[in-house]
Amino acid sequence: MKIGFVGTGTMGQPMLSNLLKKGHGVVAYDVVAAMLDGAVGRGASRAGSAAEAAKQSELVITMLPSSSHVETAYLGGGGILEGAPSGRLCIDMSTIDPGASRRVAEAAKKRGVRFVDAPVSGGVPRAEDGTLAIMVGGEARDVEEAKPVLACMGANIIHVGPVGSGEVAKICNNLIAGVAAVAVSEAFRIAEGFGVDAKVLTEVISKSSGNTWVMEHMHPVPGLVGKAPANRDYAPGFMTDLMAKDLGLAVSAARDLRVPVFVSPAAQQVLRLASSHGLGRKDFSVVYEFLRPSSRQAPV
Amino acid sequence: MKIGFVGTGTMGQPMLSNLLKKGHGVVAYDVVAAMLDGAVGRGASRAGSAAEAAKQSELVITMLPSSSHVETAYLGGGGILEGAPSGRLCIDMSTIDPGASRRVAEAAKKRGVRFVDAPVSGGVPRAEDGTLAIMVGGEARDVEEAKPVLACMGANIIHVGPVGSGEVAKICNNLIAGVAAVAVSEAFRIAEGFGVDAKVLTEVISKSSGNTWVMEHMHPVPGLVGKAPANRDYAPGFMTDLMAKDLGLAVSAARDLRVPVFVSPAAQQVLRLASSHGLGRKDFSVVYEFLRPSSRQAPV
Amino acid sequence: MKIGFVGTGTMGQPMLSNLLKKGHGVVAYDVVAAMLDGAVGRGASRAGSAAEAAKQSELVITMLPSSSHVETAYLGGGGILEGAPSGRLCIDMSTIDPGASRRVAEAAKKRGVRFVDAPVSGGVPRAEDGTLAIMVGGEARDVEEAKPVLACMGANIIHVGPVGSGEVAKICNNLIAGVAAVAVSEAFRIAEGFGVDAKVLTEVISKSSGNTWVMEHMHPVPGLVGKAPANRDYAPGFMTDLMAKDLGLAVSAARDLRVPVFVSPAAQQVLRLASSHGLGRKDFSVVYEFLRPSSRQAPV
Amino acid sequence: MKIGFVGTGTMGQPMLSNLLKKGHGVVAYDVVAAMLDGAVGRGASRAGSAAEAAKQSELVITMLPSSSHVETAYLGGGGILEGAPSGRLCIDMSTIDPGASRRVAEAAKKRGVRFVDAPVSGGVPRAEDGTLAIMVGGEARDVEEAKPVLACMGANIIHVGPVGSGEVAKICNNLIAGVAAVAVSEAFRIAEGFGVDAKVLTEVISKSSGNTWVMEHMHPVPGLVGKAPANRDYAPGFMTDLMAKDLGLAVSAARDLRVPVFVSPAAQQVLRLASSHGLGRKDFSVVYEFLRPSSRQAPV
Repeated sequence: MKIGFVGTGTMGQPMLSNLLKKGHGVVAYDVVAAMLDGAVGRGASRAGSAAEAAKQSELVITMLPSSSHVETAYLGGGGILEGAPSGRLCIDMSTIDPGASRRVAEAAKKRGVRFVDAPVSGGVPRAEDGTLAIMVGGEARDVEEAKPVLACMGANIIHVGPVGSGEVAKICNNLIAGVAAVAVSEAFRIAEGFGVDAKVLTEVISKSSGNTWVMEHMHPVPGLVGKAPANRDYAPGFMTDLMAKDLGLAVSAARDLRVPVFVSPAAQQVLRLASSHGLGRKDFSVVYEFLRPSSRQAPV
Repeated sequence: MKIGFVGTGTMGQPMLSNLLKKGHGVVAYDVVAAMLDGAVGRGASRAGSAAEAAKQSELVITMLPSSSHVETAYLGGGGILEGAPSGRLCIDMSTIDPGASRRVAEAAKKRGVRFVDAPVSGGVPRAEDGTLAIMVGGEARDVEEAKPVLACMGANIIHVGPVGSGEVAKICNNLIAGVAAVAVSEAFRIAEGFGVDAKVLTEVISKSSGNTWVMEHMHPVPGLVGKAPANRDYAPGFMTDLMAKDLGLAVSAARDLRVPVFVSPAAQQVLRLASSHGLGRKDFSVVYEFLRPSSRQAPV
Repeated sequence: MKIGFVGTGTMGQPMLSNLLKKGHGVVAYDVVAAMLDGAVGRGASRAGSAAEAAKQSELVITMLPSSSHVETAYLGGGGILEGAPSGRLCIDMSTIDPGASRRVAEAAKKRGVRFVDAPVSGGVPRAEDGTLAIMVGGEARDVEEAKPVLACMGANIIHVGPVGSGEVAKICNNLIAGVAAVAVSEAFRIAEGFGVDAKVLTEVISKSSGNTWVMEHMHPVPGLVGKAPANRDYAPGFMTDLMAKDLGLAVSAARDLRVPVFVSPAAQQVLRLASSHGLGRKDFSVVYEFLRPSSRQAPV
Repeated sequence: MKIGFVGTGTMGQPMLSNLLKKGHGVVAYDVVAAMLDGAVGRGASRAGSAAEAAKQSELVITMLPSSSHVETAYLGGGGILEGAPSGRLCIDMSTIDPGASRRVAEAAKKRGVRFVDAPVSGGVPRAEDGTLAIMVGGEARDVEEAKPVLACMGANIIHVGPVGSGEVAKICNNLIAGVAAVAVSEAFRIAEGFGVDAKVLTEVISKSSGNTWVMEHMHPVPGLVGKAPANRDYAPGFMTDLMAKDLGLAVSAARDLRVPVFVSPAAQQVLRLASSHGLGRKDFSVVYEFLRPSSRQAPV
């Protein structure tokens, strides 16, 4: 199938490579010329605009960094809705505000264009392996149609609910994971202060009410869990900047919905601050490193 | 064995009943007469002070509500250290500040008295069944000596490390569990606002990085996990007031250690506020109920 | 002058009444029919759309509840930019995201239309008296032109800087005021817990580093400052819902700018939660009432 | 008068120098030999213990770094209550937990010893000048008796209420000042992100509801207020470590009183974290510096 691919950044490029490997044609577009060159280098053909990528293909995929990029790519001048004929299916794989997904879907619907949201988990390594987890929101028929294409890029594809639900599932999952990483870091810093052995404590908690996926798989304290980013100087994994972004989406969604939230903004801000202090490109479990105790020298 | 039991409150009473059932003698003391009467009604004999309970027994157990109660019971006038002969083993099963455990242990040591901390998990139901989880801090020899007695009250007894380590393990575990409950509540309130099905979302998260023991076993949203407190109007389980207390111990410990913490005070305060608004005696997963969205009626 | 007035809600109506009183003609529009009827009842003529209000007038004022309302009113179908001829001056008096002000201003500029942001302080009472404080962002020439019209509605008109600066000044001021109200409430709840006299404490703080406008003019503890909302059961003043909205704008702006913030989201969320629990229409100093201590009955 | 002075640290030394200058005799004690040497170098005579300092003098002053130091100095072995005869007046000028002040006062009362708490504001410069602000808690008669001595060290002496009230006033004032400094920093970081002039914004806020003593006198943005620490690379002024300590006292007091607090722990923790990252000895307005935005380079 000929696939229009808009947004050929760090994640988009390995994703479109997998589409090409599985025999699809790809016509790519990106506002950043260097990124589009990269996609062409991988074997995609070049479109002059998002509209053109949509016009020259049978299905459109977008993979962009933020809600406003997605809204511009679909709704703006030279955007996808200008090029896509009635009936066309568009799959947005960006991680954005679920409200933005719904606004774009509604605008698409008015033009007879179909839209599903399908954000991914797993980062660049799993994008390269074609084993991303993909959470999808949209009408059942559209999601069924999208699945074979998504299966070229991911290994675990879940239909969560109506349009926007993929985004909701992703940001809600990441809200919990992000907060858990901060909580585990705080707990182990306290234990460390009392001289309690982190390995023993990990065993105790793993069998108790404090157990979390985060501690089991990406323990923030170095030396405890084999493949954890903590054991390779917090090389990601999932970058602090991206977790701060996803927590930001969660907190903004809460604001729009008038839901009071407390631990998610606290986690968001401490990750944001860690980024300000140079840790944005490290795995987000580096927050353990950031939350180091201050010196015990007590001023009077 | 003749056991001195100081602190015969809601938890202490079923615990001493289990000691009696297993054939031990219990000499009890409590500053609150009504509570001591309860213990006597269960078959304990009555001591006139903590010192007397210590003098008339071969081993001392304390089960008290706070650090200052424990310090007074051991160090105060008429306290355990006045009555306990050199060599006596004392087991403090209260949940208190690990620093307080260490101060008491040090004072005890000066009098030749041995001390282990052994806080429990599981609440009144498991206190009654004699299946509490018990985390123990102390010297190996003392912990070995304590184990047969602890086994009358609990099913899972773990030696974590030196004195205070039992407390550290408990408050660190509960820090994570308490924060996780708030995080899960926030996530599901957001999902709800977008109309996403909570059952489907639970399945998605349970297989992803946001998974936590708390969601699996005590999901705050009613109707999703069979035995969760949410399905019986948040009957505890583990009371909001107790979780607020344990988070308070964690935050205070962090302060003393100069460890910066962000999500634990946020969780502590929202549970404290839930208690102010009448939810202190409900299971702490009731925070989901408390974090309800405000009305959407938008003022200009 | 003939003035188009879009957004005739609780604030907009007394504001347009003052324009009429000063001899201007007003052609009004609101998407809510009942509100538009109210404006007509006050003497405005009725437009069928925002575009029509813009076409039939010499200057346009907008007073709307949120960023998205403003973007729709200017940029949407039937919006102001469809009706306003080149050269027309538009004054947006809504409290919205400064980024949204700039997006609208830029779109307006492309059509040759001039735009200034001019959010107000003072609430309904000062809207009725025509004594609002107005913070203005825009080009000097445009602001000069706007001033005589703004002077019909306000008493204190400040040109802060380029477009968006009026909004920035308002949300930054309200960030501090909102946080201060929570801080003062926390301080006086603590003092109260220790039985310290609130009047004496107020005198001490008023001469020290903790002094704030908020404590001096709208002390959250009843009985201390004559005209404070606390003395009339927290009748606003400035509603909790509006302060939560403004803190939300500040926190969202911080997110977009990647500025880490801690006390503003904490204040935002506690006001949002107070609103969930029925206090949204009270003055925001009611947060003192909301932060009441929980009962001292200590569970074991 | 012969004055016993216990705690001869950075603050204590200039304070006892002022007592000597005004003609009093000082008999000093400190657990740290080097500090006691310093006091002797200034003209004090040397005591071998706190008890001895109390026995050899007519009035006792203590100036110590924490609640536990004060409790040990009064209640411990070789402590003040061992040496002070019945009727003696003790003035504790340390900044500590008001609850600790009351516990010490109560223990003193049992021995017939009188106790007032009298924490100070103004730091080393005003300790040297003898112009400290002193907030006093205690019985009227005792406070009257203390005043002439306090007047040797301070210029502004306020009787707040019963024992502990001096501490309450200090920590409540500092709670608000500390939170305000963070709020002002957040506001000006946001304004800066939008390119709004900080000088103009300061003028606007100074006349509006966001005005605070902190912004007027110790504006965290360099270049705006003449004598602000920001203009001398955040040389204190009042150190971040001390403000973190005082906010910690406020948050702990709130915990003991079961008062829910939100902005004070948020401010406490961000100052604690700033200290972890090397800013503990700078003025606490340095939090503005710490809250710098993270780089705008957006990851996909």
